[in-house]
Amino acid sequence: MRVGIVGLGLIGGSLGLDLRSRGLEVLGVSRREKTCQMALERGVADRVSVSLSLLATAEIVFVCTPIAAIAPTVKGLIPYLAPETIVTDVGSVKMPVVQACSQLWHHFLGGHPMAGTQEQGIEAAQKDLFAGAPYVLTPTETTPVAAVKKVEEIERSLGSQVYICSPEDHDRAVAWISHLPVTVSAGLISDCMSESEPAVLQLAQQLASSGFRDTSRVGGGNPELGVMMARYNRQQLLRSLFQYRQSLDQLIELIEQENWDTLEQILKSTQKARPQFLL
Amino acid sequence: MRVGIVGLGLIGGSLGLDLRSRGLEVLGVSRREKTCQMALERGVADRVSVSLSLLATAEIVFVCTPIAAIAPTVKGLIPYLAPETIVTDVGSVKMPVVQACSQLWHHFLGGHPMAGTQEQGIEAAQKDLFAGAPYVLTPTETTPVAAVKKVEEIERSLGSQVYICSPEDHDRAVAWISHLPVTVSAGLISDCMSESEPAVLQLAQQLASSGFRDTSRVGGGNPELGVMMARYNRQQLLRSLFQYRQSLDQLIELIEQENWDTLEQILKSTQKARPQFLL
Repeated sequence: MRVGIVGLGLIGGSLGLDLRSRGLEVLGVSRREKTCQMALERGVADRVSVSLSLLATAEIVFVCTPIAAIAPTVKGLIPYLAPETIVTDVGSVKMPVVQACSQLWHHFLGGHPMAGTQEQGIEAAQKDLFAGAPYVLTPTETTPVAAVKKVEEIERSLGSQVYICSPEDHDRAVAWISHLPVTVSAGLISDCMSESEPAVLQLAQQLASSGFRDTSRVGGGNPELGVMMARYNRQQLLRSLFQYRQSLDQLIELIEQENWDTLEQILKSTQKARPQFLL
Repeated sequence: MRVGIVGLGLIGGSLGLDLRSRGLEVLGVSRREKTCQMALERGVADRVSVSLSLLATAEIVFVCTPIAAIAPTVKGLIPYLAPETIVTDVGSVKMPVVQACSQLWHHFLGGHPMAGTQEQGIEAAQKDLFAGAPYVLTPTETTPVAAVKKVEEIERSLGSQVYICSPEDHDRAVAWISHLPVTVSAGLISDCMSESEPAVLQLAQQLASSGFRDTSRVGGGNPELGVMMARYNRQQLLRSLFQYRQSLDQLIELIEQENWDTLEQILKSTQKARPQFLL
């Protein structure tokens, strides 16, 4: 099988390494000639080009660009593709992507491999990045079943755990476990910085240890990524944030009222619930 | 020098091990005979008793009981102590403890070693628990300087990094970096559990990974400890929580208004600020 990859960064590059090691032929496209050359050197692709026309003979094309470029890339691909070619993406938000792309191409299937490292770019590409990690596929009612089966088969061959759900359910779920934590955690850092007494702020910085370190980690991460999440998953993130504000208000009220029994009940329920998210 | 320790749990037990290894004589008191025997077996103390009267000849007494028992213990000690004996505690909140105890005993000095493990009890006691960790001392205007110097000297001999501040500054600082993170993190778990669509909740549980794991860790911890923090540091925790609610409202407003530039500025500032807390 011949597979195309547009966007040879961490995800596209790692995908190329794995697909080639499974015996597939990989055609790689990057906007930059330098990245194309590196893709050849690193064994990410069999053939490379800066032009989408290279992908005319691909059976499946993975669009691995940043979210904002996914729909424009699909549009640019259309003149070259055979009618049955499957196009799928790897964006971390699905509703806006699927909405735009399934109107452009009948055989489009949204996808989200939940794997990554701190690093970015083709230099960071690595084998087996997807092994053991979730890979979510988000077909709509009009997505051909055969397209889902074909992409699912490829993902399973990479060792991914495949989940299939609607774009909306995906975006709600990642709002809870990924985008809300970033916002809550950024709020914590931003809040600690607001301490008006310099001596207390300095002391807080000196005394902070593992509790602060863990709770603040994702809020102190890549700002562009944080904005991207909020921008493309705005509706579902706001839905989570409004409910979070209620949870927080409830905790504040219990502490104000010195209702320690109920506070303990809640902390017991959070202690019990957390492992369900970490199976 | 002869040192007394009341309460032979993780902190009291570890303190006994370190002080004895530095050549000090350690007198240990526990309410339970069984703990006293284990303290002797494990080398935590030279002599033990279930009665506070054992401590009549100590120059310094460390009260290592749970917070609620600190002031009652100091009261119980008074009949036995020589007038110059220094009494210090290891409670994780300082204002209520120092307020109560400095009225009971002129040579009282509040202390908070910020060290620990997940384990509790004398079985978990270990050498060098305090090495490299902060140890905060919180004298008031009436605390004798000599008492501060003596306790500081002992803490330094354990390898602790000693910080000296007012009880109020201590409680404000730990509200920011310890008690607020617990509340914020518990709110996150509690909130995710509130998802009304079972399919989305299940998907969230399946997809949760390191971001959720780290942000939720302290909120899924020991419920009794969480209640204790809120109960004894209520005023400062509420102060942090009210400001946190403002930080959160600001983030929500920016996302509602799609003000991505300002959101990115804030996320850049949190990315820059976080390392200041992790020196």
